[in-house]
Amino acid sequence: MAQRLVVIGGDAAGMAAASQARRRRDRSDLEIVAFEQGHHTSYSACGIPYWISGMVADRDQLVARNPATFRDEFDIDVRLRHEVTAIDLDRREVVARDLDRGGEVRERFDDLVYAAGAVPTKPGWADTDMGGVFGVQTLDDAGALRDWLDGDPTPRRAVVVGGGYIGVEMAEALVQRGLSVTLVEKADQPMATVDPDMAALVATAMRGIGIDIRTGVGVTGLDQRDGRVSAVVTDDGPVPADVVVLGLGVRPNTALAEAAGLPVGSSGGIRVDRRMRVVGAPGVWAAGDCVESLHLVSRLPVHVPLGTHANKQGRVAGINLGGGYATFPGVIGTAVTKVCELEVGRTGLRERDATASGFEFVSVVAESTNRAGYYPGARPMTVKLIAERPSGRLLGAQIVGWSEAAKRIDTLAVALWNGMTVDEMTSLDLGYAPPYAPVWDPVLIAARKAVDALDRSRGQNEPVGGRG
Amino acid sequence: MAQRLVVIGGDAAGMAAASQARRRRDRSDLEIVAFEQGHHTSYSACGIPYWISGMVADRDQLVARNPATFRDEFDIDVRLRHEVTAIDLDRREVVARDLDRGGEVRERFDDLVYAAGAVPTKPGWADTDMGGVFGVQTLDDAGALRDWLDGDPTPRRAVVVGGGYIGVEMAEALVQRGLSVTLVEKADQPMATVDPDMAALVATAMRGIGIDIRTGVGVTGLDQRDGRVSAVVTDDGPVPADVVVLGLGVRPNTALAEAAGLPVGSSGGIRVDRRMRVVGAPGVWAAGDCVESLHLVSRLPVHVPLGTHANKQGRVAGINLGGGYATFPGVIGTAVTKVCELEVGRTGLRERDATASGFEFVSVVAESTNRAGYYPGARPMTVKLIAERPSGRLLGAQIVGWSEAAKRIDTLAVALWNGMTVDEMTSLDLGYAPPYAPVWDPVLIAARKAVDALDRSRGQNEPVGGRG
Repeated sequence: MAQRLVVIGGDAAGMAAASQARRRRDRSDLEIVAFEQGHHTSYSACGIPYWISGMVADRDQLVARNPATFRDEFDIDVRLRHEVTAIDLDRREVVARDLDRGGEVRERFDDLVYAAGAVPTKPGWADTDMGGVFGVQTLDDAGALRDWLDGDPTPRRAVVVGGGYIGVEMAEALVQRGLSVTLVEKADQPMATVDPDMAALVATAMRGIGIDIRTGVGVTGLDQRDGRVSAVVTDDGPVPADVVVLGLGVRPNTALAEAAGLPVGSSGGIRVDRRMRVVGAPGVWAAGDCVESLHLVSRLPVHVPLGTHANKQGRVAGINLGGGYATFPGVIGTAVTKVCELEVGRTGLRERDATASGFEFVSVVAESTNRAGYYPGARPMTVKLIAERPSGRLLGAQIVGWSEAAKRIDTLAVALWNGMTVDEMTSLDLGYAPPYAPVWDPVLIAARKAVDALDRSRGQNEPVGGRG
Repeated sequence: MAQRLVVIGGDAAGMAAASQARRRRDRSDLEIVAFEQGHHTSYSACGIPYWISGMVADRDQLVARNPATFRDEFDIDVRLRHEVTAIDLDRREVVARDLDRGGEVRERFDDLVYAAGAVPTKPGWADTDMGGVFGVQTLDDAGALRDWLDGDPTPRRAVVVGGGYIGVEMAEALVQRGLSVTLVEKADQPMATVDPDMAALVATAMRGIGIDIRTGVGVTGLDQRDGRVSAVVTDDGPVPADVVVLGLGVRPNTALAEAAGLPVGSSGGIRVDRRMRVVGAPGVWAAGDCVESLHLVSRLPVHVPLGTHANKQGRVAGINLGGGYATFPGVIGTAVTKVCELEVGRTGLRERDATASGFEFVSVVAESTNRAGYYPGARPMTVKLIAERPSGRLLGAQIVGWSEAAKRIDTLAVALWNGMTVDEMTSLDLGYAPPYAPVWDPVLIAARKAVDALDRSRGQNEPVGGRG
């Protein structure tokens, strides 16, 4: 008799696991049922800002694979609008509610993939029924926001709360739609994912397209008129708003897992081993925004909700489920984003992370260009490196530039992944041609500067964490 | 008394060595004299096609540092238009001829940096006094070609002989200047630096801008009329030409070194250790296009004349000369170029190299896009990986794409540098955002495909070097 796999969550991680398992085990060996509470499977949440801005015309373009494809090509029984309400590990079954038609179903499983994703952080003041307040975590959220933006009266003033990736990307998207945009951020800078010196470059670019950035400002409530939001109340006074977008981050969606007794780690995510098996729960797997990962530099458990990890983790779970062998060794915190023509990349630890992890380090910032200086279209590129001292091992890197900049972080990410020192990096054989780099690549220039800083710090016994 | 350093060759390698030595040893400790037979120091030979095309307006833009800068800021006595004619290692002196004013000078040295560069390959038929036949190795060569192109009568038909990087780049530059261009190449394909399947993509793009590519065609002579070239004679008949550009590659310029008894390796380049000391010749250093390097994948000595290596090697020689410690461990054959809006990158071994080095391998070609498929401006990108079997170690990689493609070879170059397997590579934490990559980065897609090919080859015992 065929075994049964139940998947909770029909987005990247869950469906990657399901389809990889299917590749290795056919229906006579493994039946697969996937529950998804929303209306869509396997979509690009990262693409939402570009659909909101209008740059991507059609929402369906964001859907990589729809339920019919999974059914027809992968023999996976996807049940949309089904919310799993309980997991019974002893009886090996889940209970799911049909959100549209009502009623409950029970499904037996041999293996379970928990891929319930993340839930947006929602402070008390955001828990409201008033119109015009939106998260942008799911495609359903995004649809509601688009309807509001296209509605009557047409919103003119937007407030984005939270200056992380999604907040920054949404602020730009709303400017592109013609709204007047204010970004409110509690911290001293938007883009706290990079160090303050690099974030300052991003803030300047954002202000350049007219975004009013208010940092160090906390939100305390919302005002409304006739059931529609009219202002965001902050500790710096009210900010008028016809629409409010929340970008306050997410936390792992573990309620159901915890209720079933699955272990949650210090980061808040479900604890898994490197094959994506939930620790202490045979036959239960977890992947995606609900799990915690090992940070390979700090060696600490972290929660990094990103589509790229979700896909990899789901694939790894599915290969193992299917009888193969695959591992997800961990993350190093690589991320890229585009802000107002500015390209931003980061990997590894920021200065504050390095300090918090107990590293001594030097950090350097090197100015260079994306192309040979004489080649048309050459634009500035700033590369920051953080290197352990005295070892010289690369701990983190950040890049801000105007074009052809962001993805160069991958070069640094692979160096960091392999534990290279900045001294070793100066020898790297990187591609050179005038349309693509100066003869000393920006990465190599930064590595050389870091070597010099290390030399100085060894000689002069600089203060810990001093800048080169 | 100050010691003396004599540098032979005032381009990237020689001047990098001189300036690094100066950073660590001031004039009272080290006097530095550099002889350069041309009119320029430290220029970008790689930039020549872009000056010929007119994309770079002014030839001086290609000069990174001129002799006055070296004199004033680095206290280096640069003597242009001086050809070194002999090295006497016993007496520790060189003899140089003043090409403009005549006469000889002798300079004593304690240390010598030999950075004489490379000489273009010139078959017998190219050894001619007729007008209109040019190499493009030096800025002086390029100046002569520009004068001819701007001259009267204005050339209309160009023939480029040789389909390597410089030939391909020059062909495009001449098209941009409005000439009708034929590229003649003896081998079966232009861009033999990548495998035939990838080179075919490049050839298609070249034909797309009107370049007449004739492969498998050897040149046997030149025809002239009134002292000006009129045709390139080939074994496939004459090809009319008002100007001929030679791009037949270069060989290490070692005549002077060999005459002095310095060792030359199997690649034709001068043998150096990892600190750029000439083997068996204390106090003599060599760097740049005249040396041979260790290929870190094939473990064979190779001659790879590239500005990026010349700069690194010169820097390493200079640091060591200056009392520091630096090494040049070798090369892995990374190169990028732009051909008619097509971006090409390569690193490591091609299939033929892998076979010649005795590797068993699989190779895969993965089609993907530079951006998320739904993001505006997404263009195709083709990534080829060659991986040892059964180990899975990456041996080589090639990328051809339409934009934001070439420099992604660096990601693969760093993976290869660190001896990663394609299986390990599937876990790499690379940057993802819709403007920069699909959620599965093209590099990761290719790595996954290579893993699958390895799995299949292990199961099915495919023929050696079989394609996945």
